[in-house]
Amino acid sequence: MTRSSELSSTPAFDLEGGFDERRALIDGALDRLLPGESVEPVSVHQAIRWSVFAGGKRFRPILLLTTGEVFGARPEVLLTTACALEMIHTYSLIHDDLPSMDDDELRRGRPTCHIRFDEATAILAGDALQTLAFQIIADESLLSADKRVLLVSELGRAAGTPAGMVAGQARDLAAESRAVTSGELEQIHSLKTAALIIAAARCGAIIAEATDLELEAVGKYAAQLGLLFQITDDLLDVTATAETLGKTPGKDARAQKATYPSLYGIENAHQRAELVHQEACAVLERIDKPTEPLRAIADFILNRKA
Amino acid sequence: MTRSSELSSTPAFDLEGGFDERRALIDGALDRLLPGESVEPVSVHQAIRWSVFAGGKRFRPILLLTTGEVFGARPEVLLTTACALEMIHTYSLIHDDLPSMDDDELRRGRPTCHIRFDEATAILAGDALQTLAFQIIADESLLSADKRVLLVSELGRAAGTPAGMVAGQARDLAAESRAVTSGELEQIHSLKTAALIIAAARCGAIIAEATDLELEAVGKYAAQLGLLFQITDDLLDVTATAETLGKTPGKDARAQKATYPSLYGIENAHQRAELVHQEACAVLERIDKPTEPLRAIADFILNRKA
Repeated sequence: MTRSSELSSTPAFDLEGGFDERRALIDGALDRLLPGESVEPVSVHQAIRWSVFAGGKRFRPILLLTTGEVFGARPEVLLTTACALEMIHTYSLIHDDLPSMDDDELRRGRPTCHIRFDEATAILAGDALQTLAFQIIADESLLSADKRVLLVSELGRAAGTPAGMVAGQARDLAAESRAVTSGELEQIHSLKTAALIIAAARCGAIIAEATDLELEAVGKYAAQLGLLFQITDDLLDVTATAETLGKTPGKDARAQKATYPSLYGIENAHQRAELVHQEACAVLERIDKPTEPLRAIADFILNRKA
Repeated sequence: MTRSSELSSTPAFDLEGGFDERRALIDGALDRLLPGESVEPVSVHQAIRWSVFAGGKRFRPILLLTTGEVFGARPEVLLTTACALEMIHTYSLIHDDLPSMDDDELRRGRPTCHIRFDEATAILAGDALQTLAFQIIADESLLSADKRVLLVSELGRAAGTPAGMVAGQARDLAAESRAVTSGELEQIHSLKTAALIIAAARCGAIIAEATDLELEAVGKYAAQLGLLFQITDDLLDVTATAETLGKTPGKDARAQKATYPSLYGIENAHQRAELVHQEACAVLERIDKPTEPLRAIADFILNRKA
């Protein structure tokens, strides 16, 4: 239950304002943490910045900042880990877009990294971004060494295999062009998408020294959020136009990829999204903190148009 | 200067025996730390083990163990970081062998990872190995959190960009098919090869709580060792047979890659190797520990046949 005393002292969360402010904080920190474009090897650093500053929504780092602030941490102690998360996310996009993986030429309306540069440079840019993600956490002197190792461990588990993002991408590729069950589909997405979203919320809570029970609850909230994110992503692929989406819509269907609309139909997928949103919000009720901004994030994902 | 009291109490280093024993320790630890081949996603875990257990010499982890022991650490506290280093090295080999990079089909006499599996699996196997390297250090409860963050930071700097392995690989690719100066060649190799070898020695010394002066000296020794390693590698590419080398010799020359023999000629490259070996050994004289095993490693690299 949210305590009314805390609620009354917390101004209503300004969703769009809060997002923009956090996005600017994150972009500024990323700019400081990444090697400049004129630093050798220039090609790799240009490719890194091309992909990191491609107009991404910064959903994961915003979730980390928001969760950390809900549990009482100041933004400045959260920022480096938020950037590390965005670096891991960006590296995965660069590698997923490669010809031997999803073979995408367009992302957010711009050429993907291997199209703008070349394949070797894209592979190296992704590799270097992953390295840098762990390195900047290890170097973050605003956090105790105990916290830094917890964060590296959390991020590693969420990004790697057998229980993280890389495992999800491998299973996704293995599932292409064959029928998958709804259970398999949720397993793939819980690894490929939700693992990093759960890590975002948990890392914010770890930095803010949330209790184990709070960590567990916030992880469950984020698991639902990750699922919601994937369902709305699949729906947008079917219903959005190329202009709002920044990539070719309908690509999943043509690739015979298992998606929520393809498995459940569009209407049922919408209902599933509503249900998952409700479950995410129900978990927040168990957290005795002003969780309104986390609820606002769930609302935003449910209603997103891009 | 090596103290004679310590020398007399240290048995002469049994080079081959010491190598074999350490290699067995490392292989056992890698087997424990890597996901099993039957764990999903099976393809990625098979690809990881195919590449990690490919008959590698374990030069970097052996150097880490040896350096740590010279400075007084027990092997068991060194082993996880040694494995992390081998994982980073193996991930870099998998990605370097890809068609868009060095396009190698054979390594140590066996098909490379993307040939045995496929490109997507090889990219993911490399990605997951890098993640796991940082994660296992963060999770190593035998080391203090302070040491763990130092090690993640050290390894990150050595593996990434602008001052590590990925930067070296990018510069190496950029230098293909054009004339490079000897200065450029040394810069490329100091990043691509020596950075991780320096990290091996420094990580061992960090775990063993060497002083800053000792760390600096052991880093200089390892920088020479890295250079020596590269010169002898280039020489073997020219002089060895496919059978002893496990890959097609002469490939560098056909790819018009800058190498020590191509820049200096074979005889001068041999002389350069001798000189670098002497410099490595001279640095060891400044370390007041029983450094004989480190000298033995330098001897071994100078005289290696594969």
